[in-house]
Amino acid sequence: MLKKFRHTEGLLARYARLVCDTVVPYQERAIRDEIEGVVPSYAIENFKNAAILNKTGVKPAGGDHKGCVFQDSDVAKWIEAAAYSLSVKPDAELEKRLDEVCELIGEAQEADGYLDTHFTLNRPKEKFTELVGGHELYCSGHMIEAAVALYEITGKKKLLDTVCKNADMLYRVFVTEGREGYPGHPEIELALLRLWRVTNEDRYMELAKHFIDIRGIDTDFFNKEYRRLGINIIYDNHYSQCHAPVRQQSDAVGHAVRAAYLYTAMADLAAITDDKELEDACFRLFESIEKRRMYITGGIGSSYHGEAFTADYDLPSDTAYTETCASIALIFFASKLLKLRREGRIADVMERALYNTVLAGIELDGKKFFYVNPLEVLPGISGNIPTHRHALPQRPGWYGCACCPPNTARLIGSVANYAWDEQDGILYSNLFASGELTLSNVTLEVETDYPFGDTVKYKVKKGSTKLAIHIPAFTLKNYSVSAHGELKSGYYYLEVNEGDEVTVKVEMIPRLYRSNTRVASNSGKAAVMVGPVVYCAEEKDNGDVLGFSFRSSAELKLNKETPEQIGGFYSEASDLGAVYTVTAEGQQTVMDNASDLYFTDEYRKEEKTLKLIPYFMWGNRGLNQMRVWMPVEL
Amino acid sequence: MLKKFRHTEGLLARYARLVCDTVVPYQERAIRDEIEGVVPSYAIENFKNAAILNKTGVKPAGGDHKGCVFQDSDVAKWIEAAAYSLSVKPDAELEKRLDEVCELIGEAQEADGYLDTHFTLNRPKEKFTELVGGHELYCSGHMIEAAVALYEITGKKKLLDTVCKNADMLYRVFVTEGREGYPGHPEIELALLRLWRVTNEDRYMELAKHFIDIRGIDTDFFNKEYRRLGINIIYDNHYSQCHAPVRQQSDAVGHAVRAAYLYTAMADLAAITDDKELEDACFRLFESIEKRRMYITGGIGSSYHGEAFTADYDLPSDTAYTETCASIALIFFASKLLKLRREGRIADVMERALYNTVLAGIELDGKKFFYVNPLEVLPGISGNIPTHRHALPQRPGWYGCACCPPNTARLIGSVANYAWDEQDGILYSNLFASGELTLSNVTLEVETDYPFGDTVKYKVKKGSTKLAIHIPAFTLKNYSVSAHGELKSGYYYLEVNEGDEVTVKVEMIPRLYRSNTRVASNSGKAAVMVGPVVYCAEEKDNGDVLGFSFRSSAELKLNKETPEQIGGFYSEASDLGAVYTVTAEGQQTVMDNASDLYFTDEYRKEEKTLKLIPYFMWGNRGLNQMRVWMPVEL
Repeated sequence: MLKKFRHTEGLLARYARLVCDTVVPYQERAIRDEIEGVVPSYAIENFKNAAILNKTGVKPAGGDHKGCVFQDSDVAKWIEAAAYSLSVKPDAELEKRLDEVCELIGEAQEADGYLDTHFTLNRPKEKFTELVGGHELYCSGHMIEAAVALYEITGKKKLLDTVCKNADMLYRVFVTEGREGYPGHPEIELALLRLWRVTNEDRYMELAKHFIDIRGIDTDFFNKEYRRLGINIIYDNHYSQCHAPVRQQSDAVGHAVRAAYLYTAMADLAAITDDKELEDACFRLFESIEKRRMYITGGIGSSYHGEAFTADYDLPSDTAYTETCASIALIFFASKLLKLRREGRIADVMERALYNTVLAGIELDGKKFFYVNPLEVLPGISGNIPTHRHALPQRPGWYGCACCPPNTARLIGSVANYAWDEQDGILYSNLFASGELTLSNVTLEVETDYPFGDTVKYKVKKGSTKLAIHIPAFTLKNYSVSAHGELKSGYYYLEVNEGDEVTVKVEMIPRLYRSNTRVASNSGKAAVMVGPVVYCAEEKDNGDVLGFSFRSSAELKLNKETPEQIGGFYSEASDLGAVYTVTAEGQQTVMDNASDLYFTDEYRKEEKTLKLIPYFMWGNRGLNQMRVWMPVEL
Repeated sequence: MLKKFRHTEGLLARYARLVCDTVVPYQERAIRDEIEGVVPSYAIENFKNAAILNKTGVKPAGGDHKGCVFQDSDVAKWIEAAAYSLSVKPDAELEKRLDEVCELIGEAQEADGYLDTHFTLNRPKEKFTELVGGHELYCSGHMIEAAVALYEITGKKKLLDTVCKNADMLYRVFVTEGREGYPGHPEIELALLRLWRVTNEDRYMELAKHFIDIRGIDTDFFNKEYRRLGINIIYDNHYSQCHAPVRQQSDAVGHAVRAAYLYTAMADLAAITDDKELEDACFRLFESIEKRRMYITGGIGSSYHGEAFTADYDLPSDTAYTETCASIALIFFASKLLKLRREGRIADVMERALYNTVLAGIELDGKKFFYVNPLEVLPGISGNIPTHRHALPQRPGWYGCACCPPNTARLIGSVANYAWDEQDGILYSNLFASGELTLSNVTLEVETDYPFGDTVKYKVKKGSTKLAIHIPAFTLKNYSVSAHGELKSGYYYLEVNEGDEVTVKVEMIPRLYRSNTRVASNSGKAAVMVGPVVYCAEEKDNGDVLGFSFRSSAELKLNKETPEQIGGFYSEASDLGAVYTVTAEGQQTVMDNASDLYFTDEYRKEEKTLKLIPYFMWGNRGLNQMRVWMPVEL
């Protein structure tokens, strides 16, 4: 259900504006190959060539599909992000260009509803023969999501018609005709459930359920595909979460984005069909992430190998993979879990992923992006040596595999859908986000500087509602709500009426966090958080940070500073306004002989005050050390 | 120059006996494929098949070369180890079998001197066309080393004749006929210099010099080979240390074993030819290792990728590669550097590598081996997930690529050659090793429990000599020698005569070591050493060790215990006698809720006394946690 939401001030509003003003236009230029000096995308070009082929029966010269097999999805994700940006800020020119792109996509669709420019242009005889890696169903899923978002926000039906025709064809092939198999990369399942919601066509839900139900039943399916294709490898089913039927899965495994997209659809389907077995599986998988396989930043997927989950408590900082898309997918998953069980800890995970890994995925200027989000950067090592090659210390302008930038744009553009939620007559505030929400029964305005302020005001401008406000776990021991209500599982339930003003106060103080001792890489270390925001130390503010240790008893001081006051940031960063920085007392190891590799007493400790900035601001001032987890006195 | 040396008691003698009684016989069975349940070697079988082909002109059925292209070198390394074992303990039966193997190798040699069963059996037309990875020169090098050792110890000439014929052929091909190229894996260079020493044939030295001098001049050489072979890759010259002429190299790079074998030959050649430029390069490379790229265990090569050096200060514990062979090669390099400059720090590195990584390479029963020597083991992660797959938590019985086990055997079997050294009329004691040394001018007996005792007695039984005793760096602030002499660069110079008894006392106390702050993975951590021996904590003795932190002011207590007293070791470990263990006071983090992943104050510290054992004894009691570097109070 779409919320009518108007961003006002604050951090999320700033990012929503950045998405409208910079990210969406920048990414449009990227998919149109108009940005100099970055990897070309060919994404729009592929659609143009497929349209010509459809129209003329002849592939234009040089008209082979270029880029990743899933390049179409970049266009879809851009459309979806652009749709959300229209909900944030109307833009008639953008709407016109969107109409043209939707027209083009319709022209690139084959007569039977098939839609995938890679196969249309390059491998027309091989459709659905390589579900393991062909990504046709993945691209269909993203196009469905784009169409649904565009329809919900603008009422435009052109793309919705295209994707319905595509989904109808998929239903015919995989259900009616009984073609074997399920997608290597889950995505279509969650998309079909979105499509079912706007169209009320049950076959879309049925197709989603079909793909979910058969997943991992025939564990030899992808190997059979490979054998048919003459490829001699043994597929690791864990990579695609098809090592076991989904209802039997317990540990989050494999490619983290695939996993969380699948779990999102599973949770949504469990709610739709009231499937307790599926619900229990979803919560086992969520706990495996929340309790054993998630970074403090809400990053998931510890390893470059397979962009994947690894093992319980394997959460290295410097070689972390923690793909931006994976944290976005974790937010999707959390939002569906909340429909099943309204537990604050689920919203806590959503908030953790959003304010840290997702926001860190974008340069403050909105033009550069991280795919990988390490928690420690070591110049000369990070992005450089084979074990750390993926952990780039600075954001590039675009990627050959550009899944993350448009994914970030669509998440931030639609952040109101995660901040707010309605269920069984109750309006849920999952995240604190300033802005005005208009629903049929109520209009609410929220004013807050959160996460760089401790006060959140809910003003009821019109109507009345049952309201449940998520009180984040970090403040559960110390918070206040100015109206009477009841706390249950991390949500504060109350009734509000026109004219009411409810003030929530949370405890925004810097805290030292420790890790479970089983996280070997964090032994003897601590990290600072203020509310949901993880902090890091950069060399730019501190000189060498590798020799620093927190004093556990030391004061951690909160400061409110603008990027200009912190120093060294782009001028574009100025619209962040003031953020919290933290100063922490501690000690710096000074070696008597800086060239010694190992030594006993030949060092001393000097008092040092470390300056920490929000993790999402890291890497905006050139190459330098960055650290989240640092040694701490016992 | 070979030392006549009789092991008496002590740790090195124990390992020398283990090599004679267990390792050499076990490895003989391995290369003869007589051990059930371990990967077959085919190493002797390949020679048999090549001999039949040479004799009959027909390759026997099923007679293709099997195993790695460098499988011949396993036989060579075994012969060399067996030769050293004869110097430790005569064995007429073993001599007989060695004669037979040498005979077989002669039969496998082609008429023109060519010797490599892989090419003879499988690729007779492709000799010397793939120097980058063909390993012919590497195998020739190892066979030369075996022949030289066997000749020096037993006077047997059969294999020496074979390798001379082979070396003559190589000289003809690469010098006389001017064939382009140098080996992808250095080894022949150091071997040819050994051959030159026993034969006085200058062309062997000349050929070694040729390979060293041309290395890295034509940096396109291996790419040209690949292009000729139709292989479409861009070769990384750093991997084989041919990115620049050797005299211009400064950082230790690439495959660590290749690097250290090359540097060994460079140092030896620099001494032979009095080449100052080459000497300076050797010392730059050594400092790059000693000061920036070496683990506290003397392990080198931080990364699984290319089994290679990575970047300065990149020394992760859990993903360390630190191949056993690389530390052996580092000992070779150090022994040659000592000929150039008699500096104690070089012998310190030798000692560090020997007592830690090399000894850890062998199970205490002599029948299982580590290729990779991590400094931290996490059950469920180590040896298991992709980033840690190489870091096995327990020693296997053999390897498909079995370079390390026989290399360890030959190093330990010849340890007297590294402990002792003669140069310019001075007898150098580089390492403390109990035993009796007989030279033309002097017979000395050394009595010591070192490294599990603090007293080393040098008794002159006959003759006299100038003696220089290496005083390890860890004790330079506190040591005594009972006879007058002079300390210079870590060596104590004195004159000894028949009947003299010189007692050296060193300070064997447990010390907490820190790392250079630039070693990010050791931030806030310390490790314990007693003398040259690195210590580790295993779960078997301590329960969970991940939650433990050293108190920096706490007493570290030294205990002398047998493996039985420590508990859980094989009965074969009993011949270790008593070793030092260390108990360290500290604190254990106890979480209020063990399932929390991140938390603030919900934990407490309990007093805990940790038991540490020598690192080389780790992994002998089943799968469990192991840790060298642990958090420490500031």
